[in-house]
Amino acid sequence: MKTFITDNFLLQNSYAQRLFHGYAESLPIIDYHNHLIPEDLANNKQFANITQVWLYGDHYKWRAMRTLGVDEAYITGSASDKDKFEKWANCVPYTVRNPLYHWTHLELLRYFNIGILLDSNSSSDIYAQANDLLASEAFSAMGLLQHMNVESLCTTDDPTDSLENHHTLAKADSNIKILPTFRPDKAYNLSNIEQFKSYIKKLESACGFTIEDYDSLLNALLNRIEFFHENGCRLSDHGLERLVFVENNNFNEGEIFSKALAGKHIKPQEQQFFTFKLLGFLCRAYCDHGWVQQFHLGALRDTNHRMLGKLGPDTGFDSIGDFSQAEGMARFFDHLESTNQLAKTIIYNLNPADNAIFATMAGNFNDGSIKGKVQFGSAWWFLDQKDGMEKQLNTLSNLGLLSCFVGMLTDSRSLLSFPRHEYFRRILCNLIGEDVKNGLLPWDEKWLGKLVSDICYYNAKNYFDF
Amino acid sequence: MKTFITDNFLLQNSYAQRLFHGYAESLPIIDYHNHLIPEDLANNKQFANITQVWLYGDHYKWRAMRTLGVDEAYITGSASDKDKFEKWANCVPYTVRNPLYHWTHLELLRYFNIGILLDSNSSSDIYAQANDLLASEAFSAMGLLQHMNVESLCTTDDPTDSLENHHTLAKADSNIKILPTFRPDKAYNLSNIEQFKSYIKKLESACGFTIEDYDSLLNALLNRIEFFHENGCRLSDHGLERLVFVENNNFNEGEIFSKALAGKHIKPQEQQFFTFKLLGFLCRAYCDHGWVQQFHLGALRDTNHRMLGKLGPDTGFDSIGDFSQAEGMARFFDHLESTNQLAKTIIYNLNPADNAIFATMAGNFNDGSIKGKVQFGSAWWFLDQKDGMEKQLNTLSNLGLLSCFVGMLTDSRSLLSFPRHEYFRRILCNLIGEDVKNGLLPWDEKWLGKLVSDICYYNAKNYFDF
Amino acid sequence: MKTFITDNFLLQNSYAQRLFHGYAESLPIIDYHNHLIPEDLANNKQFANITQVWLYGDHYKWRAMRTLGVDEAYITGSASDKDKFEKWANCVPYTVRNPLYHWTHLELLRYFNIGILLDSNSSSDIYAQANDLLASEAFSAMGLLQHMNVESLCTTDDPTDSLENHHTLAKADSNIKILPTFRPDKAYNLSNIEQFKSYIKKLESACGFTIEDYDSLLNALLNRIEFFHENGCRLSDHGLERLVFVENNNFNEGEIFSKALAGKHIKPQEQQFFTFKLLGFLCRAYCDHGWVQQFHLGALRDTNHRMLGKLGPDTGFDSIGDFSQAEGMARFFDHLESTNQLAKTIIYNLNPADNAIFATMAGNFNDGSIKGKVQFGSAWWFLDQKDGMEKQLNTLSNLGLLSCFVGMLTDSRSLLSFPRHEYFRRILCNLIGEDVKNGLLPWDEKWLGKLVSDICYYNAKNYFDF
Repeated sequence: MKTFITDNFLLQNSYAQRLFHGYAESLPIIDYHNHLIPEDLANNKQFANITQVWLYGDHYKWRAMRTLGVDEAYITGSASDKDKFEKWANCVPYTVRNPLYHWTHLELLRYFNIGILLDSNSSSDIYAQANDLLASEAFSAMGLLQHMNVESLCTTDDPTDSLENHHTLAKADSNIKILPTFRPDKAYNLSNIEQFKSYIKKLESACGFTIEDYDSLLNALLNRIEFFHENGCRLSDHGLERLVFVENNNFNEGEIFSKALAGKHIKPQEQQFFTFKLLGFLCRAYCDHGWVQQFHLGALRDTNHRMLGKLGPDTGFDSIGDFSQAEGMARFFDHLESTNQLAKTIIYNLNPADNAIFATMAGNFNDGSIKGKVQFGSAWWFLDQKDGMEKQLNTLSNLGLLSCFVGMLTDSRSLLSFPRHEYFRRILCNLIGEDVKNGLLPWDEKWLGKLVSDICYYNAKNYFDF
Repeated sequence: MKTFITDNFLLQNSYAQRLFHGYAESLPIIDYHNHLIPEDLANNKQFANITQVWLYGDHYKWRAMRTLGVDEAYITGSASDKDKFEKWANCVPYTVRNPLYHWTHLELLRYFNIGILLDSNSSSDIYAQANDLLASEAFSAMGLLQHMNVESLCTTDDPTDSLENHHTLAKADSNIKILPTFRPDKAYNLSNIEQFKSYIKKLESACGFTIEDYDSLLNALLNRIEFFHENGCRLSDHGLERLVFVENNNFNEGEIFSKALAGKHIKPQEQQFFTFKLLGFLCRAYCDHGWVQQFHLGALRDTNHRMLGKLGPDTGFDSIGDFSQAEGMARFFDHLESTNQLAKTIIYNLNPADNAIFATMAGNFNDGSIKGKVQFGSAWWFLDQKDGMEKQLNTLSNLGLLSCFVGMLTDSRSLLSFPRHEYFRRILCNLIGEDVKNGLLPWDEKWLGKLVSDICYYNAKNYFDF
Repeated sequence: MKTFITDNFLLQNSYAQRLFHGYAESLPIIDYHNHLIPEDLANNKQFANITQVWLYGDHYKWRAMRTLGVDEAYITGSASDKDKFEKWANCVPYTVRNPLYHWTHLELLRYFNIGILLDSNSSSDIYAQANDLLASEAFSAMGLLQHMNVESLCTTDDPTDSLENHHTLAKADSNIKILPTFRPDKAYNLSNIEQFKSYIKKLESACGFTIEDYDSLLNALLNRIEFFHENGCRLSDHGLERLVFVENNNFNEGEIFSKALAGKHIKPQEQQFFTFKLLGFLCRAYCDHGWVQQFHLGALRDTNHRMLGKLGPDTGFDSIGDFSQAEGMARFFDHLESTNQLAKTIIYNLNPADNAIFATMAGNFNDGSIKGKVQFGSAWWFLDQKDGMEKQLNTLSNLGLLSCFVGMLTDSRSLLSFPRHEYFRRILCNLIGEDVKNGLLPWDEKWLGKLVSDICYYNAKNYFDF
């Protein structure tokens, strides 16, 4: 069956079509946050088949397959790549109305020019056709990015990373700028002391000196921030249930750190205090360096320990939490703002019920110093679909200023996810076009076109100091 | 005035119309959760008038009447059935945009073939016309179900119930399968010790032995599960504010139970621990029996004690709570899953802000063993209306797989509520049809028709082991 | 560029157009809650320029300007009124999709008959044109209200207010009824003891006797309630994060008050208990006087202390909170209801995720005594825009009765905000018209017209005892 993805996919009125085709479609991509593997890019990896580039590591697809009763052997297990692809192909028609259905066919079309729908009938042909293409040089890791008109992208990296792949990439003859992002989650997570201690060892190796107390921990992290900065990093990122401000009480971050280094159990309240103190220190350092700090908030992770034991983290057993967000976040930013040390900030929200909180929170710390200084980030993870994006865009529009938005990112582990920028751009143009059609906005094509291209490209270009 | 309910009611495009009339309309009904009175069914009750079958027990209508300033005498009080009907008729035009407005006219049309709108003008005629029909054999309790093409239904029953009405029904010459559901809420609710103690007495009578300690309580409940199972029960149900996992601390469920039997006050934390332990035991037993367990979560009950004192519970003074749901639910299911004892599960949500939490939670425990093993249940109670259903269907679609959904149930106390299946089916077909119209889905009639008929009938047929 | 605001702005179908133009448009305005400055009204103030009447005090515009990177000098600072207007004009095109964009052009059109869009090009002309008009008598404070067809309005006043401006207004030759509202927030806020003590001093002056203990505090407040009542007040208002019921434990409100008077620090739990007790007392007094009590719940205030220090409260650094609302509110109303002392009540919600909680809460305490006794209030503050209003109206429709709604209010500090009633009326008519167009409601023009005019005017007229 022929694909339903036409030139005007998602563009339900002529205004939207004019905006997308005239102003958004051809803009390059700034993918300022993703989880691509730097090694694959540095080596310009060539993939053996479509299963490896498309199904490996994609826990969205895995969750769908499990819901449909597919045995784990065909998901993350020992079945052949061909069999795994076939199982996925069987599942695709059952993903109707889920974003996977759109993504699947958009990606087949844009990367492989495959214009028929994937199902058990078309599976073999599509497998062969995609694999043929993947064997060609044009379908190498860097080739795939080139094909998508990617101008720059930021991977997500641990502070202990040597960034050697980024060195290789910086020296390579490519017009795609690939930069690291500083993600120090492990440095302030005391929930597992053994893991923390071995992380501190890694950090010592990375910075080249011994970390014997809290001060040397701070020095080590500053050292790595400098190193990342020299290697082009202009962004940090953090994954947390929530941001908090913790009163000092009788806690002391130095003592807690010493206890942790000595392998002693740290109580939950002490953990939270330590995270708060160290995160505050890091945030002030980001501000000093002119970085943008990102916070991904609201995920409830590792819910299914039986499966976690089998497959490890990030395999499809996380979900949306209902943590209290507003007060802690306000007080955390307030304490940075009180000394004028709040960096440019993007807050990403996982629970759609909290969209209004995030959108209005951003407004509290926009003080006229920088256009769109604090951003309510693009729809994230489970919300990265038409309905989720529309809700984020509408909430931002109603409670903040859409015109200042830095726009879309893939947040993906996959090289085949870049058409999500196109998906976002279509949705954005459609929302604005619908407003014009309904008489809610004047049809000032030039102005609305500028607005669209700002959100799709120029705002990010100006906001990030790449 | 003529009714607005036409053949294509709620079907706003030709695709929706094709799907509904071609695939959904004529399917039988599996009403796997309701609150019909088994005695009325066993006796094949004949109703004296439409007030008795339509207004008695319907707290949705009562709330509306109270909001409109109607005296309680005409709601639950001593006014005549005729006067009560008239008061309700006066109110109907003021329920515009509330689901009552649609339900009222859909039910008048489908059961009584009354195609005019109910108001103070039409009240007398409609009262007479409906009462005439109710006097005929075709309008007996079982006749009403037959007329609605009900194939099977599950009532909601206390573990102490003798199920004698279900015995009668099983032996009756009817092609409608009527099964009990095990609802043990009273067995783990220690908030009122006198009520609990008298409940334990009833449980002793039901199982035929003395309950002197926690172990015999477990035996008694197992005994009743067996008894229910033998009588065709394949479902349990639970009404709770939230699911929780409680650390052992220094609590002991046996000691708590002994204290409760001795009539001593049980502290809230002990109550919660006891509920957690006993519920965990029950859930493992359901898993052993291959049952489906249902959890109705999020209601804030009995808010108005002045009216509760007058009228008792379930009379229209409950509302939507904002309990923390995600973490407790995840940990509760995780502890069952850790020993492979998580039964097929349906979670129903009362607070629309939590839809995304419930939909993604289901995905955490779908492990490939059974198609759609953990279900985000149909829109419940206050949410059982067009907007609430659309939100549930859209959230499920975006964050899970609509194709695996077991679909609609009435959850009703009334024999006249079965057109809600039709209402649901129309809404479902309309959503899918709109997607096709908007180019979001290909028009593959056969496939979408299969999807629709799965959700309306076949998924439930396969999921439940009736 | 010509304005996009046409006669049928927001009215997307012929039914909506009929309802608005036929039934809603010409009704007078009852603005039962706003923050207009009584002195400006009593003095029939004439404004020097449009900046003073439009930008001064409007923190919605300020937040937008800060987000766009405008220096504070041009917002609340020392720049000239002309320059401030110009900066705002530059910002307006960037507010596309924010309510400011609609409000701005609707207000220019309705008050000044300016039918072109405001931007940097049109800025000077519009400034001149508006200022010319503002110089005329017709554009005095009372003239502006007259022009908007305001029948009555309620300001928001502290219990210590002398109401002298209201006296002046009562004696003035005007057909606009201007009444005070009793807002006693400072009387139960013990978070800052020095502020509380000086407030008690003011209260002493107002009531003319010494407040030496809790009983005399109660007398003082009762005294002020009587005084307000004599001056036409029929409404109270309260701004709180949440409503709570607090168990007595070992607290005593009298002792807490004495400690506060003595300048001692009051612990948060004691503060909460004191607020609960005093608020309960006030609510019973409102009930005795037949007043309507209003509660504005859910704001997280004063989040940015650096800017708070510079500019003071209510300058654009508040946002939406995620407080637990349901249980506390239910128990607070329940304890008033238990002695039959729950006054007519309006609850306003700031977090859209809580709409369903508020809408169903109202239903719990509607007991048939008064039509629409407990109201889920109009969309408030951040939610006072098309999407927020539609959500409030739809939630109210689905979970309560739209037909009983007392409708819109401006809640504004600005004399130029009254077209928001028109905005609300258009949105209301459009929602109902869309339902008719989609076959969800019968086209009974007379009935739907009555419903619309009830919500826009007559329900408020009957509900409030002005």
